[in-house]
Amino acid sequence: MKITIDAMGGDHAPKAQVLGAMKAVEAFSDVEISLVGNEAEINQHLTKHGRIKVVHTEDKILSTDEPVRAVRRKKSASMVLAAQQVADGEADACISSGNTGALMAAGLFVVGRIDGIERPALAPTLPTIDGKGFVLLDVGANSDAKPEHLLQFAIMGSVYAQKVRGIDRPRVGLLNIGTEEKKGNELTKHAFSLLQQSSEITFIGNVEARDLLNGPADVVVTDGFTGNMVLKTLEGTAMSVFTMLKTALTSNLKSKLAAAMVKPELKVIKNQMDYSEYGGAGLFGLRAPVIKAHGSSDANAIYNAIRQTRDMVGHDVIPTIAKTIEKQQ
Amino acid sequence: MKITIDAMGGDHAPKAQVLGAMKAVEAFSDVEISLVGNEAEINQHLTKHGRIKVVHTEDKILSTDEPVRAVRRKKSASMVLAAQQVADGEADACISSGNTGALMAAGLFVVGRIDGIERPALAPTLPTIDGKGFVLLDVGANSDAKPEHLLQFAIMGSVYAQKVRGIDRPRVGLLNIGTEEKKGNELTKHAFSLLQQSSEITFIGNVEARDLLNGPADVVVTDGFTGNMVLKTLEGTAMSVFTMLKTALTSNLKSKLAAAMVKPELKVIKNQMDYSEYGGAGLFGLRAPVIKAHGSSDANAIYNAIRQTRDMVGHDVIPTIAKTIEKQQ
Repeated sequence: MKITIDAMGGDHAPKAQVLGAMKAVEAFSDVEISLVGNEAEINQHLTKHGRIKVVHTEDKILSTDEPVRAVRRKKSASMVLAAQQVADGEADACISSGNTGALMAAGLFVVGRIDGIERPALAPTLPTIDGKGFVLLDVGANSDAKPEHLLQFAIMGSVYAQKVRGIDRPRVGLLNIGTEEKKGNELTKHAFSLLQQSSEITFIGNVEARDLLNGPADVVVTDGFTGNMVLKTLEGTAMSVFTMLKTALTSNLKSKLAAAMVKPELKVIKNQMDYSEYGGAGLFGLRAPVIKAHGSSDANAIYNAIRQTRDMVGHDVIPTIAKTIEKQQ
Repeated sequence: MKITIDAMGGDHAPKAQVLGAMKAVEAFSDVEISLVGNEAEINQHLTKHGRIKVVHTEDKILSTDEPVRAVRRKKSASMVLAAQQVADGEADACISSGNTGALMAAGLFVVGRIDGIERPALAPTLPTIDGKGFVLLDVGANSDAKPEHLLQFAIMGSVYAQKVRGIDRPRVGLLNIGTEEKKGNELTKHAFSLLQQSSEITFIGNVEARDLLNGPADVVVTDGFTGNMVLKTLEGTAMSVFTMLKTALTSNLKSKLAAAMVKPELKVIKNQMDYSEYGGAGLFGLRAPVIKAHGSSDANAIYNAIRQTRDMVGHDVIPTIAKTIEKQQ
């Protein structure tokens, strides 16, 4: 299978992309990779060429670019060319660590939606204390959503959890401000009954934001505005607590000594909260897998995103989503 | 001034309420307190009677009661009687640690709204790393909001921050998924321009959930659904990280020793995250201060809520809100 990577997006591009790709072709004998970007910069890190080819371009989308305009105007940017390879059938899927909004625009305009899908959704897998994680969608592909969109998110998330995460009957929860059926705003009240009626998913009811890290469901659906808020709050709070902890543990000699003693234990916590282990965020609802790896991705995070993308292609996630959506309608 | 307290709501009622009240009358010579609840239970803890009177009732609202129905049917529940004292002019303000939904219903139906206020808002003060905190509203008084409601929230939050928190020109931020003006959903896009046009507040633009603990504004406005989500995510994440930390720091002898060495430093972090120091959550937009203290409030948290309520009454928060809302219209 052919996976194309925007080699110029993200904080550690193109080094992380090149090293991650080399690790992946070594691990997976069925994977061929295109690295799209500045050939000279890529070649500084590329020491193995088997099943990796470089597609040269000078242009790239910046994190500060206005997404839609950038995708429309920068036709030869590395991210747009990667999406174009997918649209042209030259690649089965694409990965980028660049500008999230631009990748969503490239996915929508260049790769295109699955028939019947009204809104794509951005779907990361978030960590839980037990290490199992859960799929949260949408975290910001669209700011406003209708109840039917949430049902489509539930179907897409379920197919992904089943095919890629190996969960037999993924439990779907609706993110809400209380667990009771009547709770919530207009959107969640209507979505609740739609989700309850669907025979394509295993709906377990409302789940609360407070419980997310305890893993109350395998798939949690919400509108992109709320999902983005919850994701950012989660990241911001964890980061702030770690910052306070770091300050506390380096404030004097005794605390520094104690910190050294518990270093392995603290590392375990950091790893528990690290969601790059689960791969990138899928942009679900497009005609091919489009994966947003974290902007700060290192080689290992890119490798994990490639493994995840390979699973999505290998386990027919897109055709299964398309078939299930058709059945639901 | 007269403050009435629902002595039967919360995890540590009535002990926390009684001890908190006794501490408050000692600290503030201008405060008289009514404790509404079971007289026999209250008297087990009440050792000082100066400026504290007990209003006996057998009935109370449970945390499991359906809020609106409970307030309508249990006319002699301690919470409803406390609200009734305010409505009848027998008290200037009331405090409860009981069922949040029921207190909102009691506030709305018994105490009543300020003329011109369309929706009350629940407004806790949340902790920040620098210890200054900020007022977040609405965190769940209403699930759906219109742009005009967010402007009213901004005005109410600003008056509170100025009068009670002593901030001269409180900076108001709109909680959003990006800092750029055009970001967000239909609600935030419209609210942005309304907030920008108002001369009654100091609007500083959008603030992101990720930055909340860094204190980007003195007052942050959002709809009750999003606010509730963000609050619960924040609490849940902090709690989960602390739980993981506790597990890690008690996993073996060496880590236990290290934990003992940094106990004072860890205590500082816990205190930084403890928002009972800022008092309870105000239910803004009512004809008198109605304060929701945390369900787990101890005597000190109740004392802080009384101090906060006294500040609200003493600094004319309600009349100032009423006047500013009238001017804005």
